[in-house]
This record gives sequence, C-alpha cells and structure tokens, in this order.
Amino acid sequence: MDLNSDLGEGFGAWKMGDDEAMLDIVTSANVACGFHAGDPSVMRRVCELAAERGVAIGAHVGYRDLAGFGRRALDIAPEDLANEVLYQIGALDAFARAAGSRVTYVKPHGALYNTAAGNAEQAAAIVDGLRRYDPALALLCLPDSEMQRQAEKAGVVAYAEAFADRAYTAEGRLVSRKQPGAVLHDAAAVAERAVAMATGGGVLTADGGKLDLRPDSLCVHGDTPGAVELARRIRAGLAEAGVPLGAFTG
Amino acid sequence: MDLNSDLGEGFGAWKMGDDEAMLDIVTSANVACGFHAGDPSVMRRVCELAAERGVAIGAHVGYRDLAGFGRRALDIAPEDLANEVLYQIGALDAFARAAGSRVTYVKPHGALYNTAAGNAEQAAAIVDGLRRYDPALALLCLPDSEMQRQAEKAGVVAYAEAFADRAYTAEGRLVSRKQPGAVLHDAAAVAERAVAMATGGGVLTADGGKLDLRPDSLCVHGDTPGAVELARRIRAGLAEAGVPLGAFTG
Amino acid sequence: MDLNSDLGEGFGAWKMGDDEAMLDIVTSANVACGFHAGDPSVMRRVCELAAERGVAIGAHVGYRDLAGFGRRALDIAPEDLANEVLYQIGALDAFARAAGSRVTYVKPHGALYNTAAGNAEQAAAIVDGLRRYDPALALLCLPDSEMQRQAEKAGVVAYAEAFADRAYTAEGRLVSRKQPGAVLHDAAAVAERAVAMATGGGVLTADGGKLDLRPDSLCVHGDTPGAVELARRIRAGLAEAGVPLGAFTG
Amino acid sequence: MDLNSDLGEGFGAWKMGDDEAMLDIVTSANVACGFHAGDPSVMRRVCELAAERGVAIGAHVGYRDLAGFGRRALDIAPEDLANEVLYQIGALDAFARAAGSRVTYVKPHGALYNTAAGNAEQAAAIVDGLRRYDPALALLCLPDSEMQRQAEKAGVVAYAEAFADRAYTAEGRLVSRKQPGAVLHDAAAVAERAVAMATGGGVLTADGGKLDLRPDSLCVHGDTPGAVELARRIRAGLAEAGVPLGAFTG
Repeated sequence: MDLNSDLGEGFGAWKMGDDEAMLDIVTSANVACGFHAGDPSVMRRVCELAAERGVAIGAHVGYRDLAGFGRRALDIAPEDLANEVLYQIGALDAFARAAGSRVTYVKPHGALYNTAAGNAEQAAAIVDGLRRYDPALALLCLPDSEMQRQAEKAGVVAYAEAFADRAYTAEGRLVSRKQPGAVLHDAAAVAERAVAMATGGGVLTADGGKLDLRPDSLCVHGDTPGAVELARRIRAGLAEAGVPLGAFTG
Repeated sequence: MDLNSDLGEGFGAWKMGDDEAMLDIVTSANVACGFHAGDPSVMRRVCELAAERGVAIGAHVGYRDLAGFGRRALDIAPEDLANEVLYQIGALDAFARAAGSRVTYVKPHGALYNTAAGNAEQAAAIVDGLRRYDPALALLCLPDSEMQRQAEKAGVVAYAEAFADRAYTAEGRLVSRKQPGAVLHDAAAVAERAVAMATGGGVLTADGGKLDLRPDSLCVHGDTPGAVELARRIRAGLAEAGVPLGAFTG
Repeated sequence: MDLNSDLGEGFGAWKMGDDEAMLDIVTSANVACGFHAGDPSVMRRVCELAAERGVAIGAHVGYRDLAGFGRRALDIAPEDLANEVLYQIGALDAFARAAGSRVTYVKPHGALYNTAAGNAEQAAAIVDGLRRYDPALALLCLPDSEMQRQAEKAGVVAYAEAFADRAYTAEGRLVSRKQPGAVLHDAAAVAERAVAMATGGGVLTADGGKLDLRPDSLCVHGDTPGAVELARRIRAGLAEAGVPLGAFTG
Repeated sequence: MDLNSDLGEGFGAWKMGDDEAMLDIVTSANVACGFHAGDPSVMRRVCELAAERGVAIGAHVGYRDLAGFGRRALDIAPEDLANEVLYQIGALDAFARAAGSRVTYVKPHGALYNTAAGNAEQAAAIVDGLRRYDPALALLCLPDSEMQRQAEKAGVVAYAEAFADRAYTAEGRLVSRKQPGAVLHDAAAVAERAVAMATGGGVLTADGGKLDLRPDSLCVHGDTPGAVELARRIRAGLAEAGVPLGAFTG
C-alpha cells in the first residue's frame, strides 16, 4: 500500500504543514507546483528531501489561484488547462531531476480534483497535459471518476486513492466537507479504516452500509493540527497489520 | 551568424509583438517563461512555431514581476534566483519537448540581464540554475560581463550577443536608454551596423571611436513599431553580405 | 442616453484599447481596478482623463484573475467576493478623488457579470460590497437579472444597459459569443440599433422578433479593431437622432 | 506612548501571526494592503477587530511582491510607487470606513521601509501617494530618515518609531538582521528597553554607547514565536512604569 500526502504547500514567507516530518511517513509526495501553492525554493527543498528518503514525487497540479489555494472551481478552457498542467509538470520535474529523482505521477489538487472527477472535458485536459509531458506518467485520482475514465481512454495508467479520514456516501463519493461528520477526527478509528481499506475490508459509509473500496494509495493530510501524528498512527496501523508500504509507481 | 529575438511576451488577453512573423526571420527565439511575461498557452504556441521552423528555443528567464515586465531590478536572494531560473527552464522545456524540440540555451531578461551583467552573485545564481537543469545548456549574454565570467568559471559555454540598433560606449557597454541616441531608428544604418558586427568590422561607439565587437548572435527586437520590418532588413542585409545564418547552438 | 465603455484595461507593459480616444466619446467609463486588468498607474491616468472630460467613473469590478482577464467563472465564496468588490471600489475611488472626481457606480466585468446575472448569491455579494462602500453608488447591469433584483432588494439603484452590437434572444438575453452572428460588425446597422434602443424603438432579436428594451446606458466596446470608429459612429447616430447624451449617474 | 504592530499578514489559506491577540495589546495596527501580504477578507477582519477595540488603523504599504513578502528591494519608478501607495491606502480605507473607523496613517513595509529610509526619490513617492489620498494622514517612519525629511518637506506629519527588540548602531540605525545580536530575544531586557525608550532614557547601542531616542511609537512584532507574549510583557512594563498608552494619531 502507498501513503500519499499533499506537500510543499508553503509560499514565500508563509508556511503550511511539516513537510519534513511527513516525508518520513509517506511513500508518495504530491508536490505543489506554484499555481495554487508552492514556490521554486519550496519545490527544491521538498524534492531534495523526498529524493533522499526514496519517496516518490508527483506533480500536484492545480488551478492558477494562489489567493484561493486552488480550492475554487475555475471555468478554464480545456486547452489552457492542458497547457497549465504541462507547465507545472515540467517545472516540478526540473527540481525532481536536479535532486536525482523524477516526477512519476500527477494528482490534481483541490477544486481541480473535484471538478475533474465529474467533468470529462477538464479530466481529458489534465490527461492531455500529462501525456504531452510523458505518457508513462501515472494519474492518481478518485476511483470511478471521469479522471479515471479519461486516463484509461488515453492509455494512461490511473491509480485509485482513498481517504481514511473522510466519510463516504453509498456511491463511493466523499461526503462534502460542509456536512457534519465529513471528516473523522478520532485517530484510532481512522487508522482502523486505513487498515480495512488496505486489506480489502472495505469501508463503512455515512449511512451505515459497506463500500468495497480497493485503493492503490491512501491519502493522509499534512496541513491540519495533529496531521503528522495521525499519519504516523496510520502508518503504524498498517505496519502492525502486516501491510507492506511502498510507492504505487515503484 | 545567429539572430535572436525576445518572443512569447504576451500574457492572457494581452498581446505583444508578432511572434509568428519574427519566427520567420530569427534563428533563435528567447521565449518568456511566465515570470515576467508569457503564459502556458503562449509558450506552447511559440514553441510549436519555433520547432516547425527549426528556430532554436532559449529560456528567457526573468524576475517574477508581471506588473513590471521584469524590467525592475529585484534584490532577490541568489539561492531563490537559482531556483526560479531552474523552474522557468523546466517549464519551458516541457513545451519545447512536446513540440519535438528542446531548450538549448538560457538568456536573462530585462533587469535581470542588466543586473547580472555586473553583479557576480546574481550572475552565478543564473548559471547555477542553468547547470542544475543541464550543464550542456548555453548562456546567451553580454560579452565581458559577470554573466560571461560566471558561466566560464562553471564550465558553461557563453555566447556573446550584440545589438545593432543600440549605441555603445567606448567600454563596450550599451548606452542607457535614458540617454538621447541610445536607440538607433534608421533601418539602413542598423542593417549596416549588423553586417559590420557580423563580419568583424566592429562598431562605431557613441563618442565616435571604434569598438571591436565579435558577437555570436545579434539581438533584434520584436515588440516595437516597425520591429518586424527592421528585423527583415537586418536579415536581408546579412544575406546580401554573404553572412550565413544559423542558430549559435546549432 | 449614456454611453459606457470598459476602459483602463492595460496592465504594466501591456496595452489594450485606446482609452484617450474612447474618453472623448463615452459619458461613463467602467474602469478596471487591478483584479482582472488595470494597474495603479493605468487607473490614475484614466481617472485623470475622465475627470478632465466630465466622464463619470464606475468601478469595473472583476474576479481576481489577470491570467484569464476575468473572463472565467470562479466559484468564490460570496463573503470573499463582497470583500473583493469593496477593495476594488476603494482602490479606484482613491484615484477618482485624487483627480477631483469620484466613483459613482459599479459594473461587474466579464465572467462576474455573466455569473451574477443568474446567480443570486454572487449578485447579492456584489451589492453587499457596493453598499458597504456607499449605498448611494449605482449598479450598472443587465436588465431583468439577479443583479438588478438583488440591487433593488437592497435599496441600491440599478441602471440597465444594452449592447447595440450584440444579438439578443427573445428572452432579452445576449446570444452567446460562441454562436454565429452573436456580434454585429456592420457599423451602420449597429448605429441604427443604438438609436432604436435609445428612442424606445426596441431591438430585433436573433429569431426575428421584437424586444422592448429601454436601457439607461449603451455599452460600446473599446478593445476591438475598429472599436473607436464604431463608438464614434454610434455617438454621431444618437446626436443626429436628437438623443441627448449624459451620464446616467449625472 | 503608542505600540504599533504589523498585522493582517495572512494571505488566503496561509496564516501569519495572531492578529486578534495582538489587537488586544497594541494601540496602532499597521494593516497589510494586499501587495506584499493581506487579502480583502483578512483586511476586513482586522479592520473590524481594530475598530471594535479603538485601535488606530494604518496602511502598511509595500512593494507588489507576494512571493517575497515585500522584503526585497524593487527598483520601481517613483510615479508608479506613488500610484501603488495611493491604491493601497484607498483599498484599506474602504474596509476601515466600513468598520466605522478610518485610515489615519501610513507606514511603509519591509524593503520599502528600508529603501525609503535612505532613498529620497522613493521616500518622496510614498509621501506623494499619501498626500494625494489625504494630506492629513500621518507617516510612521524611522527618525532622521529620508522618509521623515520628505514628509516634513511636503507638510506631512511624521511620527518616529523605535524597536525595543532590535540592536541600534551609534548612528541610530538598526543593526542588520544578518549580524549576530541584531534581534534581542530576552523578554525582560526588551521590556526594560521599551520603558527606557518611552521615558526618555535612551537606548544602549550595539557598541555600548548611549543613543538618545525619543520615539512616538514602539514597534512590536506579531509574527515570531513568542511574539504575543513579548508584546504583552512590553505593554505590562510600560503600564508598571506609568507610561500612558494611546495611538499617536489619537
């Protein structure tokens, strides 16, 4: 099983999360590329730390919206989006390669992730940008989404991620953060869900049903209070359950 | 002899210069990378047009200052500058490679060019960013400048450029644009200077002396009224004088 | 009748339209405030020129999206939008007052205009930002839109604008620019429509029907080829028809 | 004596400092205006909190450089700088007035503060922007600086600030942060210096001499670890010494 986290989300004088601590826990780092967060010096540092630890580097591509942290849907033309994705991958790969590693996958961020889950045009644009950089790059995305479908249609390998600390609907969608109970805060429960997800045990949905999730990667958050501790707990839970950890692109 | 021009300087809805016309004239295109001008869609188009025509693609790296078009000196820390240069090269190379070409050289833009001509720290930072991307990239710069010295010190090949439409001091510096006569507007005279520069004839300085300039490339401007016509005139003048044209990195 | 135009849309080194020529024609200037276009030096110049000519100054507020020129819908939280509108009005009014005039109205730009026409939340946010600056400011907007409704609900005076060079649907909506015939290019026909709109003659719709439009202001574009000439033609047509010209806020 | 602090320095998803806690301690708030830090929603909140507490609101104007947090000198043309200052004051005053208060002074931020201390052109541009907004606004600045001189020359009231936690040279300049001992971390010593500065006792310089500083305001930092506690200590020290606190513009 792979553990991925959104890292490199500082910008200039502003910090976010504890990249170094998280890089000791995860196996894949989704690194912001400067459009919704991140700057060249942050990108360099995260790539160097990831390369030292053998953590896989993914391009966490987002809308060009620093003021909104890429969390607001933007009705960008698909051809412009494809070009912005290509730009971001190229910029990050420069740092990954300078650090002796390379970008091996792409994960859309925030509102782009949410939009592309259901919007075929934006999903296809992401895949187009990815392929123009390197068709061998993988896409990390929501299972059973337009992102997954467009990737497969274009011959790009898509990996499915799940969120141990998020509530799911019966249809396998994330419960909106605006709903109560959307985010689980009990560390033990989250770690238990992670193990269940990683061992084919599925996950309890918000309405009490059972969902058969078989993710390739679990996303752990790095920017909330207690994030590092929760991520450690999940990693420890997986280790105790005998789940081997490693990058999905490895 | 090589003819280079600063291209891809539009941004979103804003246009600048006639990239397509200039790409029929020059042999090397200094393409803006999004920090002082340019955006992913502009970069894609210019790289595709350049690749089709066999025009060499260089990263025109600049200060992060869209509002000032990179024309204002910015006292950035050298390590940040190196990272910004690396970022810009990587981003542009993604488009160059997607178009079937690649970035073969780096040229600093505007205030960065002027600052790095005399400032060893900023010049070294540019060379550092270049080398971390690919030590085989060339640097296109002012002859006898800190840029040239730092490149040579680091084992990076530096090519010297000259400006047929700018007045020179006896020391081989450009006369400041704030001085009268700094920019020559007579097309015939500029074309004549270009031929003299290309054939070892040197150039008359502002105080009437003779300067022995032996540039590897002549810079022609693309963003002023009459720019395209002037560039055509220079190219024609060189052709008439029997000067073969081709990219310095070719 | 009032003639309004979107002005001050340059940014740094990039120009757009001929502000000075347009300010000799229109009676109201919608001035970009730096979020989708415009910068402090452009704003100063346009405000000074408008004040000299007695042209009314309106805040042309837009999404924070220079790269997209404010033409892409952005799913911003209403409270943030209200704050961004307040910010933009305050910034522009500083220049208007320094020039001896003041901001008298607000007009949303581009995608914000289109979104707020039908989206009550975003329309209310614009009105909220306007009111917090000065409830006596007017709103210039599409008639029979959410903008108009929210303004009236909040006690803000809304003025209706029409577009002499755009095709209308039977419902009084603008035909999308993506449709053929959405924009009329024949100057004589546009001027004739302008006179009809200004004199209660209504307008022919795209499907050949008649629409009873009674606008308070006609919008003339300033940023297309031939824009200045078309605007002059419209002004001359109105003058010939004996329609007095003056700012709606006058 | 006045206590001022740089507040409202968050940006979008990024936080900086504890504005609310600091607003319970200081008497004047230097509020970032969106050019080096701050955004409309941050500005609204800080202005509302300041107004509720009777804390004076000042425009903390900076270079347009979010990536560098306004800490890097930018060689901007004086007329552009004046316009940027005017823009920032107008934008902030919109929030101050909406909150029932108003901007009463201007303080340059970071590299602009440092540059304008010795550069007459940039200092005059700041004063020019201030005056065009309202000549009754005060300038908060370094004593015996170009800022002070240009303000006085233009009839603008300048107030002098001092830094209780910074080492001073014999000439009354701040020791560069690059030097060891430039910043004092011992809370008791800093509080003691604050009292001495506020009561005419002067300050010990880095070389052991005595400097006769008579500031109108003491600057306390809000963005460093322990900042709030140190600010409380200074306020308590001044109270114990019987120094009355109040905004210099009050």
